[in-house]
Amino acid sequence: MGEIIAGLEGIFVAKTRTSRVDGEAGELTIGGFPVERIAPNATFEEVVFLLWEDRLPTESEVRTLREDLVSRRCVPPETLGLLGRAAQRGLHPMDALRIGASSLGLTEEDPRAGSREANAGRARTLVAAFPTLAAAHARLRAGAEPIEPDPALGHAANYLYMLTGERPAAPAVRALETYLNTVVDHGMNASTFSARVIVSTRSDMTSAVVGAIGALKGPLHGGAPGPALDMVFEIQKRAQISGRPLADEARRWAEEAIGAGERIMGFGHRVYKVRDPRAEVLEAAASTLFADREDAALYRDARTVETALLETLARNKPGRRLQTNVEFYTALVLHGIGLSAELFTPTFAIARVGGWTAHVLEQIDDDRLIRPRAMYAGEFDRAWVPIEKR
Amino acid sequence: MGEIIAGLEGIFVAKTRTSRVDGEAGELTIGGFPVERIAPNATFEEVVFLLWEDRLPTESEVRTLREDLVSRRCVPPETLGLLGRAAQRGLHPMDALRIGASSLGLTEEDPRAGSREANAGRARTLVAAFPTLAAAHARLRAGAEPIEPDPALGHAANYLYMLTGERPAAPAVRALETYLNTVVDHGMNASTFSARVIVSTRSDMTSAVVGAIGALKGPLHGGAPGPALDMVFEIQKRAQISGRPLADEARRWAEEAIGAGERIMGFGHRVYKVRDPRAEVLEAAASTLFADREDAALYRDARTVETALLETLARNKPGRRLQTNVEFYTALVLHGIGLSAELFTPTFAIARVGGWTAHVLEQIDDDRLIRPRAMYAGEFDRAWVPIEKR
Repeated sequence: MGEIIAGLEGIFVAKTRTSRVDGEAGELTIGGFPVERIAPNATFEEVVFLLWEDRLPTESEVRTLREDLVSRRCVPPETLGLLGRAAQRGLHPMDALRIGASSLGLTEEDPRAGSREANAGRARTLVAAFPTLAAAHARLRAGAEPIEPDPALGHAANYLYMLTGERPAAPAVRALETYLNTVVDHGMNASTFSARVIVSTRSDMTSAVVGAIGALKGPLHGGAPGPALDMVFEIQKRAQISGRPLADEARRWAEEAIGAGERIMGFGHRVYKVRDPRAEVLEAAASTLFADREDAALYRDARTVETALLETLARNKPGRRLQTNVEFYTALVLHGIGLSAELFTPTFAIARVGGWTAHVLEQIDDDRLIRPRAMYAGEFDRAWVPIEKR
Repeated sequence: MGEIIAGLEGIFVAKTRTSRVDGEAGELTIGGFPVERIAPNATFEEVVFLLWEDRLPTESEVRTLREDLVSRRCVPPETLGLLGRAAQRGLHPMDALRIGASSLGLTEEDPRAGSREANAGRARTLVAAFPTLAAAHARLRAGAEPIEPDPALGHAANYLYMLTGERPAAPAVRALETYLNTVVDHGMNASTFSARVIVSTRSDMTSAVVGAIGALKGPLHGGAPGPALDMVFEIQKRAQISGRPLADEARRWAEEAIGAGERIMGFGHRVYKVRDPRAEVLEAAASTLFADREDAALYRDARTVETALLETLARNKPGRRLQTNVEFYTALVLHGIGLSAELFTPTFAIARVGGWTAHVLEQIDDDRLIRPRAMYAGEFDRAWVPIEKR
């Protein structure tokens, strides 16, 4: 008998060309590019092409991909019906996304086809339709009608358009695109791994991605990016009431939280021991996004709070190397774009489906069943007692 | 850097009290009972209780569970609409089951509740509603209306009733119950593992089970139990035409297949090196089921074919230890009950959801994120080239 390897930590389960996380150096490579080089420059369509094909597309290739994605944006009326019911019942937006994405099986050209080509087509359908699902559910929740996708707009811009009915401003689109590119893939995280395990039985792309949505819902994974920003708002409010400088109030807040044994949201990561490189990219994106805006103070205040909290953490937990993680600036950027906190995790999924689909295609090519073992800890040889004698 | 552990073979990922597979000895323990002791004696409700609670229920406990499951059998009208559309579009029955099961999120008492109790309630809903989903889709596919569940019938009997509209005969119900119990759980298979990975992020029961359905669909897992019986039919037909004894024809058929490098369905298993204990239990179930029936010859013929194929395999592939696996008699039993081959995998899921839900509850109690690593095999430090210069 072997030993249980808790959480499979440190076990290498597959090769990938999608991304590499170096937690000690604080480096993230996406499709061969340092995240800070690719994320602020590329469109999301380019990055998805990069993950699928391991190279950047030419102009004509990206046009073809974009047209194909546009043609796959609409979802069937049954799906909209479900999303309406999900909104009515107050479902978690990730449950709505899972229900909706699962029902996209109904739109597949040849639902029984098992070829790699068919699965690559499913990948394009899933990437294309995620924004439609998330936006339709958000609108239905607000008591509004879903908005049809606008074929003239790119992937990121069209998502914002379907949320509001207004063509979004260029800085918001760029900030969203940078966010999507930054979190599109991140090594072998739990949702990506779920997708790989599922398709390793020679199942299909849609089944794998639907499983991944379920994993991303969990608060240990993508399910809790809102609280970091709530904390900034809370500290702002306290400073307003007390009249103390924001940095002082932030330090007090952190001391209190540490004293009470609470985790401070937006800091610390299982893998990164230095500042998360994604925090770096998103901070820059937030800086550009908020520049010259009425609410530019929010960005400056977030920076002030970050600095004060890092100081307090370093003083109180010197050995822990707690650094700013991706959540802190994710919340700021998405809020700055105009998204409500309920949309943060679905928007994460809109990005990550690019990575999931790339990993699933790799796993299909690898064609190896993933099947670890369980260690039995139960009884043996129990005697059968008929129910009337129990 | 470590090495990639292909398929995680031999890696222990969790403790479990649900089941234990001993491939060398050919033994399967389910909730402390040898499979051959529990499967033919218990109702499915009793076995599900056993997996959830690690003991057999009393009469009053099983009555309470049964009533609760009865109350959770109906599915929302939106779900039936989706199943109708799935039938129309010719979706794989497992895709229909995945879509339907995902939409059960709409029926949850408190869709946002994250407690173990809420997840245990979801487990009961999933177990209760799987037969409704599978039966409704099968009827819609045949152009018939779905049949409402009959609260007077037990879990297994009600499934057969919803397929045909007729109250099933006792031998068919017993055979189905024995089948469901036999395959309810089987160590850390790929679908069970998917479910555990998903819920390890503190996601929820429904998300985990929906992922597991996707994994079970794959032909390397639950997706191909029909061909073993097709082979028996094919050999019967050849014997009828040639006039040769059935055993001779089976040997010829096997020699041909082996010569052509084809796999013979229903034989060989990654874990079992002796006769699969589930084959043993299902053979006994088939023997009882077919006794005194008009088509009793089919059982005898299957036995004859099995013996002849085992002889031929042992002669031609002496080192491989290819033994009868669970698929061979699964197909015979389910066919004997009156199920079409398209229902075989969904019926497998109707059983296995008992095991999935038990494993998910164990994983919730364990509360450990499952997150292995990927080995990066891509480029580094690629230069960004604007699209017009590519």
